[in-house]
Amino acid sequence: MKPEIRVLQVGLGPIGLDIARRGVRRKGLRFVGGVDHDPALAGRSLAELLGGEAECEGPILASAELASSACSPDVAVVATTSDLAIVAPMAEGFLRAGVSVVSTCEELIYPFISAPEIASRLDEAGRTGGAACLGTGINPGFVLDLLPAILSAPVDRVDAIRCWRIVDAAVRRGPLQKKVGAGLSVEEFEARVRQGAIGHRGFAESLHLLCSAFGVGTSGATTFIRPVIAEADVVTEHVQVSAGQVAGVHQGAEDRNGRVLLDLKMYVGAQDPHDRIEIDGDPSVRVQVEGGYFGDTATSALVLNAIPGLLRAAPGLRTMLDLPPLHAPPMPA
Amino acid sequence: MKPEIRVLQVGLGPIGLDIARRGVRRKGLRFVGGVDHDPALAGRSLAELLGGEAECEGPILASAELASSACSPDVAVVATTSDLAIVAPMAEGFLRAGVSVVSTCEELIYPFISAPEIASRLDEAGRTGGAACLGTGINPGFVLDLLPAILSAPVDRVDAIRCWRIVDAAVRRGPLQKKVGAGLSVEEFEARVRQGAIGHRGFAESLHLLCSAFGVGTSGATTFIRPVIAEADVVTEHVQVSAGQVAGVHQGAEDRNGRVLLDLKMYVGAQDPHDRIEIDGDPSVRVQVEGGYFGDTATSALVLNAIPGLLRAAPGLRTMLDLPPLHAPPMPA
Repeated sequence: MKPEIRVLQVGLGPIGLDIARRGVRRKGLRFVGGVDHDPALAGRSLAELLGGEAECEGPILASAELASSACSPDVAVVATTSDLAIVAPMAEGFLRAGVSVVSTCEELIYPFISAPEIASRLDEAGRTGGAACLGTGINPGFVLDLLPAILSAPVDRVDAIRCWRIVDAAVRRGPLQKKVGAGLSVEEFEARVRQGAIGHRGFAESLHLLCSAFGVGTSGATTFIRPVIAEADVVTEHVQVSAGQVAGVHQGAEDRNGRVLLDLKMYVGAQDPHDRIEIDGDPSVRVQVEGGYFGDTATSALVLNAIPGLLRAAPGLRTMLDLPPLHAPPMPA
Repeated sequence: MKPEIRVLQVGLGPIGLDIARRGVRRKGLRFVGGVDHDPALAGRSLAELLGGEAECEGPILASAELASSACSPDVAVVATTSDLAIVAPMAEGFLRAGVSVVSTCEELIYPFISAPEIASRLDEAGRTGGAACLGTGINPGFVLDLLPAILSAPVDRVDAIRCWRIVDAAVRRGPLQKKVGAGLSVEEFEARVRQGAIGHRGFAESLHLLCSAFGVGTSGATTFIRPVIAEADVVTEHVQVSAGQVAGVHQGAEDRNGRVLLDLKMYVGAQDPHDRIEIDGDPSVRVQVEGGYFGDTATSALVLNAIPGLLRAAPGLRTMLDLPPLHAPPMPA
C-alpha cells in the first residue's frame, strides 16, 4: 500500500476550510495539521473545525514554521491571500524544508513575467529543498489558461485563441458578490478600480501562461476593467442591485496583435453563464462549457487533484503546463 | 538554440504523408528519412514525395532497421497499421536502439489490458534503450479518453462520465466512409462485423484508459456495434447510400456498473456532428465541442504535438495521461 500523503492546511478561511473538508475524505491524503493567524483558532484542532468528521492530528498553530516541524508534512496547501509578496516568503520556507507547496494564490499560477524575482527565488528554493511549488485554481489556473491550451492539442496551426467566462455571481459566496462591485454606483465602482479593490486577481497571469504555450509575446498587451450595469433589479441573499447600478465586473486582456484574448464577466443576474473557447486554426475548435465550471468547488478540487502529480514533479516552481494532466480522484466504490 | 529533433517517418500512406507534410513545416523538427514497404517508393526521397517543399535527407527504405541506423533519428513516427501485433516488434526494435516511438496504432494508446504481454515488452524495451513509446490520435487518444479525464480536473467527486462523438463520415476521406459500412445492406454490415472488418479500432482501449483514471474496473464491460440506417438518400464523393441502407456505424462501450460510457456514431449524412462530455458529480460538468474535432487533421496534429514532451518523458511505455499536457505549437510569426 502506498503511504498516505501528509498535508498541512495553511489558511482556514472559507476556501482553506472547503479544501480541508473535501480533502479529509480523500483516500491517500492525511491532514496532519493547520495554520492560521486568527487567535480564535489557536490551540483548536482541524478535526474540531471540520465538525469532527476528520481524522486530523495536531493543533492549529499560528506559525507555519512551527507547524511544519511539528507535523512533518509532505505538502502544504496554502490558501491565505491573493498577494504573492505575502505568500512567497512562507512558500520559500516550506520549499527549503523539502515541503512541496500548492496554493490558490492567483498570482502564483505564472509569476515569471509579473514577479520574476519572486519566481526565481521560489524556483531556487524548490530545487534546493527537493520540493515543487504550484499555483492553481479554476480561474486563474484552468478555464482561461490550461483548458484552452489543452483543447489545442489536436490543432496543427493556431491563428488565434479567444476565451470567455460569464459567471452569475448571484449563486456564489457573498464576499465574491461584493468583490465584483454588485450594488455600487458607477462612480464608486470606478473609484474602487483605481484603488485596486476591484479586478479579478491573476487575470494577467492567465494571459501570460496561455501566451507562453503559443510563443506569443506579452509586452504591449492591453487590459480593461468596466462595470456591468444592471438592466433590471436583482436581489440575492447578499446584495440588492437596482437597475442602473453596477451588477458586477467585465474584464478583458489581449496580446498586442489580438491573437490571444481573454474576456471575463462576473455579475449578479447573468442570464447565460458559460465558459467558451474558440481556436481559429487548422482545424478550428469551438468548445462550450454549459453553465461554466462552478468556481469555488472547482478551485478546491483542482488543489486536491494536483497534489499527487505535484509530489512526482521535478523540484522547483512548476505551472499547470508542466504537470501530467490532472483529473478527479477514483470514483466512490 | 535547441538542436532539432530528428524524425523518421514510418508508413507513407495518407496519414503518414499528412503527418510528414505538416511536420516538415514545424520549427524544431527535422524529417531525416522515411520507411515504407511499397516497392514503388523504394529509393525515392521524402522531399520528392512531399512535392519538394521539405528539406528532407535520406532515401525511403523498406527496412525500419536500416533506416534507423542510416539516419540516427531521435523519434520514429509509426503510422502503418492498426494491428498492434504487427507494430510492436518494429517499435520494440526502435526502443531498444534508443529511438522513441509515437504511433497512430489505435491499440497502442492503452494496451495494458488488451495486450498485457506486448505492453510489458514495449515498456521493458523502452527502459532498456532509454526511450519512450506512446500511442495517440484523436480517437482513440483524445476525445473519448484524455479529454474527459482532463475535464474532470476541477471535479471533487465523479459519479459517472459519459462521452458521445458523432462524426459525419461524408466529409472525411473515402476509405473511412467504406470502413464504417456506408452503402451496405444490414446483412452485409452484420457479416462484416462478424469478420471484424467493421468496428472502430481502439474503442476498448479508450474505455480502459478512461476507466484507469477513475479507478473503475473494466472486467464485465459491455460493448455493441450496430448499423446506423439512412433515413434518406445520401450521396458523397465516394459512396451512394439509399434510404434503408447502412449509413455508418454506431458503437458503444460501458463498464459493468454503467459509470463510464462511450458512444460513437460515424455515418454519412450525420446532421449534428459534435463531441459531448457529461460528468455527473461535484460539481457536474457539461461540455460540447461544436461540430466535433476534425479527425484526420487532429490525429496528425496530436502526433506532432506529442513529440517534444515524449522526448522528455520517463523511458518506457507511456500513455496520454503520463505526458505533460500537449498543446499546439507556437503561433506563426
